[in-house]
Amino acid sequence: MRMGKVIGNVWATRKEDGLAGLKLLIVQPIDAYGSNIQTHLVAADRIGAGIGDEVLITSGGASRFILPKENPIPIDAVIIGIIDSTEVKRGEIHESSDRND
Amino acid sequence: MRMGKVIGNVWATRKEDGLAGLKLLIVQPIDAYGSNIQTHLVAADRIGAGIGDEVLITSGGASRFILPKENPIPIDAVIIGIIDSTEVKRGEIHESSDRND
Amino acid sequence: MRMGKVIGNVWATRKEDGLAGLKLLIVQPIDAYGSNIQTHLVAADRIGAGIGDEVLITSGGASRFILPKENPIPIDAVIIGIIDSTEVKRGEIHESSDRND
Amino acid sequence: MRMGKVIGNVWATRKEDGLAGLKLLIVQPIDAYGSNIQTHLVAADRIGAGIGDEVLITSGGASRFILPKENPIPIDAVIIGIIDSTEVKRGEIHESSDRND
Amino acid sequence: MRMGKVIGNVWATRKEDGLAGLKLLIVQPIDAYGSNIQTHLVAADRIGAGIGDEVLITSGGASRFILPKENPIPIDAVIIGIIDSTEVKRGEIHESSDRND
Repeated sequence: MRMGKVIGNVWATRKEDGLAGLKLLIVQPIDAYGSNIQTHLVAADRIGAGIGDEVLITSGGASRFILPKENPIPIDAVIIGIIDSTEVKRGEIHESSDRND
Repeated sequence: MRMGKVIGNVWATRKEDGLAGLKLLIVQPIDAYGSNIQTHLVAADRIGAGIGDEVLITSGGASRFILPKENPIPIDAVIIGIIDSTEVKRGEIHESSDRND
Repeated sequence: MRMGKVIGNVWATRKEDGLAGLKLLIVQPIDAYGSNIQTHLVAADRIGAGIGDEVLITSGGASRFILPKENPIPIDAVIIGIIDSTEVKRGEIHESSDRND
Repeated sequence: MRMGKVIGNVWATRKEDGLAGLKLLIVQPIDAYGSNIQTHLVAADRIGAGIGDEVLITSGGASRFILPKENPIPIDAVIIGIIDSTEVKRGEIHESSDRND
Repeated sequence: MRMGKVIGNVWATRKEDGLAGLKLLIVQPIDAYGSNIQTHLVAADRIGAGIGDEVLITSGGASRFILPKENPIPIDAVIIGIIDSTEVKRGEIHESSDRND
């Protein structure tokens, strides 16, 4: 999984049927120290993440398993967790910041 | 998902059977600010995207789920939505531009 | 999907059983303007592509769906179409070149 | 698979249901000589890896097969082995270092 | 598929159950001219590749299909063939070198 920070929303009225009602968030990937890496992606969210949250993102074919396997949808990124805290070697604690809930 | 802008069409007469009738568009990936990133890709489209549209693209193994799971086809990118608007942290609204429909 | 140009062949006598009889071509990925991008890959071909052809390549887990789903094989790239022509925004037509058939 | 070194932990209380109880570790990918490559990722762990361990990481859609196929979960990286040693051409033995167990 | 050269072995005693008995090799990806590209990866091998062999590597979710589909395992790279020779446009023959069998 990648770590990332939610930075925005995206809306699309015209879309594939399976995606109706799915919240889509814009995420900036970050490394373990909170630095921006790579470029923005759009991830589906079912757990209530909001702008500023640090999150865990699953990419690729397994993303659809936020829904039952009998109900496959064409998505390739999903927020699977909201990070409470991380602990990186050298003992430093990196508290998740900018929580907005 | 990635964001992108539709920039062209591609035609192929000789192709795998499962792809007959599937519209194929050339897409330039963009970031949340509309800047070009990465290189062009070709995505299947079933929702009527046109040149100039900003779109959401699903890549990889889940792309085929625009069709029922009993009917798998060998595609790895599909347009799943046409972006109406995005809202990125700092309050700035990025209106989708160049809509041609 | 990516666009690419077929540049060679590769032969392997000793291989996984499922791959017997599958033609393998070396492909140079290109962008929508025909410029080389990224590095070479090897793709399975069932539609008769030849050296010099510009082709559409599907990568990843969906590649195996050139065969029935009951017959999965360990491949991750396949040629799904031979490009006749592309049309890129600004009206310029990019005719597929170097066709050898 | 990629090689990597476990450098930290990540905790998330709010997450997708399927992930309850799954240990999540932060991993720094390394090459065959132990040099850092690429950026950090988060991988699920069921085999008891700890900080400092050198590990083998599976990414993508196959990661979920640490659980039975009837129980798919949305993860895209998992630790599948703890490296004892590697042997790289030129005869040099690279002993896994920093084992903490 | 990618081309690569086998450069080493990796051993892991503690690992996911499904991987018991699977030989794991370290591979250096190469392009069609034999130049090193990208970074090392670890691939499962069932066809008897050895150090120095030039091989074809399948990555991602299809890798597991070296085993029957009823027996999924969490791997993301596998050697599917040992390259005998390649022929690249311009007529030059690139003989596979360093075969050790």
